[in-house]
Amino acid sequence: MNSFGLKFRVTTFGESHGKAIGCVVDGVPAGLKIDEEFIQSELDRRKPGQSNLTTQRKESDRVEILSGIFEGLSTGTPIAMVIYNQNQKSRDYNNIKEIFRPGHADFTYWHKYGIRDYRGGGRSSARETAARVAAGAIAKLVLKELGVEVRGGILEVDSIESKEIDFDYAIKSEINSLDKNAEAAQKEAILKAKKEHDSVGGGVLVEAFNVPIGLGEPLYYKLDAILASNLMGINAAKAVEIGDGINSARVKGSFNNDSITKKGFVSNHSGGVLGGISNGDTIVAKVWFKPTPSIFKEQTSLNTKGEEITYKLEGRHDPCVAIRAVVVCEAMMALTLADMALLNMSSKMEYLKRIYKEK
Amino acid sequence: MNSFGLKFRVTTFGESHGKAIGCVVDGVPAGLKIDEEFIQSELDRRKPGQSNLTTQRKESDRVEILSGIFEGLSTGTPIAMVIYNQNQKSRDYNNIKEIFRPGHADFTYWHKYGIRDYRGGGRSSARETAARVAAGAIAKLVLKELGVEVRGGILEVDSIESKEIDFDYAIKSEINSLDKNAEAAQKEAILKAKKEHDSVGGGVLVEAFNVPIGLGEPLYYKLDAILASNLMGINAAKAVEIGDGINSARVKGSFNNDSITKKGFVSNHSGGVLGGISNGDTIVAKVWFKPTPSIFKEQTSLNTKGEEITYKLEGRHDPCVAIRAVVVCEAMMALTLADMALLNMSSKMEYLKRIYKEK
Amino acid sequence: MNSFGLKFRVTTFGESHGKAIGCVVDGVPAGLKIDEEFIQSELDRRKPGQSNLTTQRKESDRVEILSGIFEGLSTGTPIAMVIYNQNQKSRDYNNIKEIFRPGHADFTYWHKYGIRDYRGGGRSSARETAARVAAGAIAKLVLKELGVEVRGGILEVDSIESKEIDFDYAIKSEINSLDKNAEAAQKEAILKAKKEHDSVGGGVLVEAFNVPIGLGEPLYYKLDAILASNLMGINAAKAVEIGDGINSARVKGSFNNDSITKKGFVSNHSGGVLGGISNGDTIVAKVWFKPTPSIFKEQTSLNTKGEEITYKLEGRHDPCVAIRAVVVCEAMMALTLADMALLNMSSKMEYLKRIYKEK
Amino acid sequence: MNSFGLKFRVTTFGESHGKAIGCVVDGVPAGLKIDEEFIQSELDRRKPGQSNLTTQRKESDRVEILSGIFEGLSTGTPIAMVIYNQNQKSRDYNNIKEIFRPGHADFTYWHKYGIRDYRGGGRSSARETAARVAAGAIAKLVLKELGVEVRGGILEVDSIESKEIDFDYAIKSEINSLDKNAEAAQKEAILKAKKEHDSVGGGVLVEAFNVPIGLGEPLYYKLDAILASNLMGINAAKAVEIGDGINSARVKGSFNNDSITKKGFVSNHSGGVLGGISNGDTIVAKVWFKPTPSIFKEQTSLNTKGEEITYKLEGRHDPCVAIRAVVVCEAMMALTLADMALLNMSSKMEYLKRIYKEK
Repeated sequence: MNSFGLKFRVTTFGESHGKAIGCVVDGVPAGLKIDEEFIQSELDRRKPGQSNLTTQRKESDRVEILSGIFEGLSTGTPIAMVIYNQNQKSRDYNNIKEIFRPGHADFTYWHKYGIRDYRGGGRSSARETAARVAAGAIAKLVLKELGVEVRGGILEVDSIESKEIDFDYAIKSEINSLDKNAEAAQKEAILKAKKEHDSVGGGVLVEAFNVPIGLGEPLYYKLDAILASNLMGINAAKAVEIGDGINSARVKGSFNNDSITKKGFVSNHSGGVLGGISNGDTIVAKVWFKPTPSIFKEQTSLNTKGEEITYKLEGRHDPCVAIRAVVVCEAMMALTLADMALLNMSSKMEYLKRIYKEK
Repeated sequence: MNSFGLKFRVTTFGESHGKAIGCVVDGVPAGLKIDEEFIQSELDRRKPGQSNLTTQRKESDRVEILSGIFEGLSTGTPIAMVIYNQNQKSRDYNNIKEIFRPGHADFTYWHKYGIRDYRGGGRSSARETAARVAAGAIAKLVLKELGVEVRGGILEVDSIESKEIDFDYAIKSEINSLDKNAEAAQKEAILKAKKEHDSVGGGVLVEAFNVPIGLGEPLYYKLDAILASNLMGINAAKAVEIGDGINSARVKGSFNNDSITKKGFVSNHSGGVLGGISNGDTIVAKVWFKPTPSIFKEQTSLNTKGEEITYKLEGRHDPCVAIRAVVVCEAMMALTLADMALLNMSSKMEYLKRIYKEK
Repeated sequence: MNSFGLKFRVTTFGESHGKAIGCVVDGVPAGLKIDEEFIQSELDRRKPGQSNLTTQRKESDRVEILSGIFEGLSTGTPIAMVIYNQNQKSRDYNNIKEIFRPGHADFTYWHKYGIRDYRGGGRSSARETAARVAAGAIAKLVLKELGVEVRGGILEVDSIESKEIDFDYAIKSEINSLDKNAEAAQKEAILKAKKEHDSVGGGVLVEAFNVPIGLGEPLYYKLDAILASNLMGINAAKAVEIGDGINSARVKGSFNNDSITKKGFVSNHSGGVLGGISNGDTIVAKVWFKPTPSIFKEQTSLNTKGEEITYKLEGRHDPCVAIRAVVVCEAMMALTLADMALLNMSSKMEYLKRIYKEK
Repeated sequence: MNSFGLKFRVTTFGESHGKAIGCVVDGVPAGLKIDEEFIQSELDRRKPGQSNLTTQRKESDRVEILSGIFEGLSTGTPIAMVIYNQNQKSRDYNNIKEIFRPGHADFTYWHKYGIRDYRGGGRSSARETAARVAAGAIAKLVLKELGVEVRGGILEVDSIESKEIDFDYAIKSEINSLDKNAEAAQKEAILKAKKEHDSVGGGVLVEAFNVPIGLGEPLYYKLDAILASNLMGINAAKAVEIGDGINSARVKGSFNNDSITKKGFVSNHSGGVLGGISNGDTIVAKVWFKPTPSIFKEQTSLNTKGEEITYKLEGRHDPCVAIRAVVVCEAMMALTLADMALLNMSSKMEYLKRIYKEK
């Protein structure tokens, strides 16, 4: 079950400390100009080792495209991309070989599969999200042709909220913060946690602009439901909100309903989705990430023999996973929207005639 | 896209004011005792018209099983169930025939499909959830054989929280409240909103007990991600949290990590899921519902000709959709877990040998 | 796994002697005029009890549409159709309750599921194909709008070949024979087998005219491969050929290659498919059916206790299943093509722009 | 749509003259010993350039495993395998850059996608089948653990039949012939065609031994139907037969029914499948391949400008594609059976209890 999407479909593979990670992107319409530099630049946004606010693992994350492109254009065949791992320090993990780190997937992989690649978390490592970002870059190129843009940023770190939302600022911010006034405090919270061998959580806001009306396939492939799945599936995500989310459960219907006028919706409490279908307004989602479970304080746990132990983790870890998750959230939203855009094409007989009867 | 689940798969059909609604449940293992009374009793929990706190539409919601059962047992073939609609008052909807009700799917269905069954919201009506509840009852019967139980209740109404969680009380409560001390205030909030021709939102807590370790198929069919999709897809849901959800984004890693001892996990901030796989602890999810968009105050909107209009809705509606959504949330969690239980059976070669080599 | 198709998706349910059989057709584009009489007329073509050449079971096979249609048009929501069983003579099957009839699915269902609805073969009965025909009728209505027509007929009965192919004649022929000169001998072969308490096999030719170039999704949803699956899955089918089929394996490449000229292909050995994609020429498939396993001669077999027994079958059966399979083959081809037509709509970026950028 | 299988799922990528071809095999149960030499040896069986009877393109087809294996065992995560292309002589294809070769996918890819990688047929090249063989080798390893074996060989070349079936001989035969007495004539036919710049067709027999009863998921994922799809989808296949295939349509029911005794089935006309489910007897399938469309005689066709042209093909091609297709047929049958073995595990409640209640 390492694939998602129905028509614009992504399959990923690879472990944190294996030879390579990568993906196969299937269903890309033919004739799309593939901007390889853009794909690389997206990966660079996620890349580890760029500051003291994220993990010190150094990876160039250089993507190699193996198939699906001819003379710069997509051909309609699957686009395979590979990123070879370089900076694996597997020795770092020898001491956790037989330990179930609290808050990690060690315990569940071991029980589910009876075997576990303990090096860097194996398949459960957030390193896999590089493959999502590569695939997401292709989705963004498709969406761009339709005028759709996906943007994201840090909404909150350790309860410090970004109040003035500025996506342009986020792209420049070292921590992808949406609010230049909140950024310093957010950074400080991260560094403080790091110093205390601890970690902090955070929230990401991701929005899609200029989305056509009609995306989402009710009742069981609704836009908001699939967004929820694709965002909740990101490592460390614990909650997903659409539009006003939990807040909309705390207001009256007369406030929450978005009135419609000739000029469009007066408000956007709904986050651009009604009945699981995009309504033409901005798609708004929030994703909440728990603090990195990899902390350097002493912890108690079990080992694989069932014995209780105390241990101190070594290695290189992000003190706040939400930071590098921003571009991953964008990728997952872009992939969701690209898939929905393809699926929606057969919603009306009129569209079939437009494709098959007009030449 | 009216199906969900990969191995335990449900397809639903039907509109609010059409002939019938129903479902086909595919992948039910053979030899399951089908307790038809239990299925009906689950539907009765969701049934409208039971008090002045929910809609006045009266439906017996009597389920008829058309296939898949022989001499009281499932046969491994699809189980089709039909509920004929009885109390359709389609006239109530003549006045909204050409109006896009704010907060409703009217607008998006119209644009996506170019046609819309306006009677009672058509396919987008919450009436369809009866089909989910019927399917969910079968899932609960499967889970019961494995010792798993799913329970739910009202966590919050109009910001009034259920503090002492008591699932036994919820089953008796007219509004499925989890807290007998909060129930009266919660009811009052609903009736007040109703009186003011308005509506309120709410939150539902749903938990699964005694879930085996290992359910969830990473990386793109994770237990929490699919739960998120299946719960967010319920009408009016706007947020889903797993375990501590948003709160876990506001604490330190050293607090949020659940320590493991020989006796099990010391805490359950994770909500029973690590790396997308069940860890043996209780699965915990929270679903947040917006206030019913159907309110009886005057509202402004557009009609299908694109003209701005003001109108007052008529008809019969729930002042708080969260109430009747409790059993739907349970159904969706049960269906998710049943699917995951079937999928997990091939996780190890050892299991294949247990099935194919032992007689 | 009682569903097929990716975008135009059919789910069927029901047993031969249960309450009802039926289907849910999902993915039908909105705005299609649903001609209910046409659907019924297709079912009438398959209906049993129409002559002494087919089974004597009498079923009106009256279809009831439960959902998905509003004011005569498809709404984009699932179309559920039910056919209630009427003429079940379940007593006829008491004597085979504990017997595995040779050539039947009795043996395999029993072992796979540990339980079996023995009445009329239960789910494995060809009666289920009525649901396919109902769904296929909807597919034909979609294809008609695109100018595509699917036609079928009997190519062979008991080695007696239809040499002059005339689809117009087949529609009038009591046995759907494609050749008015072969029909009498074909009929006689059927009646002779019937008289001798035996059965005969046969072949069906099914073609699709005016199919647009480009249908089929390589590499694993090729048009010919999915046709093969959908046709081989019909009860009693044992072989599927595309175009010249086996014969093309016995000629030279220089003969088999279809030359292309400005006017189109000079020959059609390929059966209208190249590389798994329709080439604009007529799609040609042949399906070969074994003789009905239900014969009235004495046979030896096992019972469910593992004892060897001899028995004589009673009941009502077709002496040649191929006859009534013609309309089923047409239905399966139509469903395949409708699905492929929907899937192909996102093959080019140009098409996306045609849908999303042109208004 | 470059994936197949539901639980044991393969995704392939790559073009004939691109950087690499490869596959991702998902759903492999954990704890399987991965014999890399066996995988390579299967690829070697398919490898081009091994005699004057097949294409002269030289490829080492060395497979590199990128993920999914740890300390020699499968981990339950996706196994990605890559084969870098080496001996691309893309210049050979410059002269067909703007020509639609008769019998090839050139024409259909061009029309479907509006762009085409003409070098060596691009994605439509039989070179892609190397990826299937690599994936099939993993499926064979799974099946071996269950005692199942898949074997294949040449049944016919240019109408010269293999009469005495000997799978052991086939493995030694340069052309995989099943009959040592027919082999010489079969070879001669191939060389004669080659000399005449023409090509010949052929048939492949593929069987699976010791298959457990119960594999196949009726009604739309039947074992025979999915086999038909997976075999028909191999390049140049034009017909698939199960068991006696077309011949069973030409005999009486009393002959065709396989009697069941305590010792098993008396005959195997059915090819080991009843009602779409394996019956415990040998699974038998035949696949028929058209002669290679790539011939070196002068042919007439169209170019991409729509002009009629005559041309002579250059390059390196198999004079009989059936020869190298043997191991591909085996791979596709093994992959089908592995998928079915995994799917069948939830057929009975008894199996669920065996996995979840027994420790």
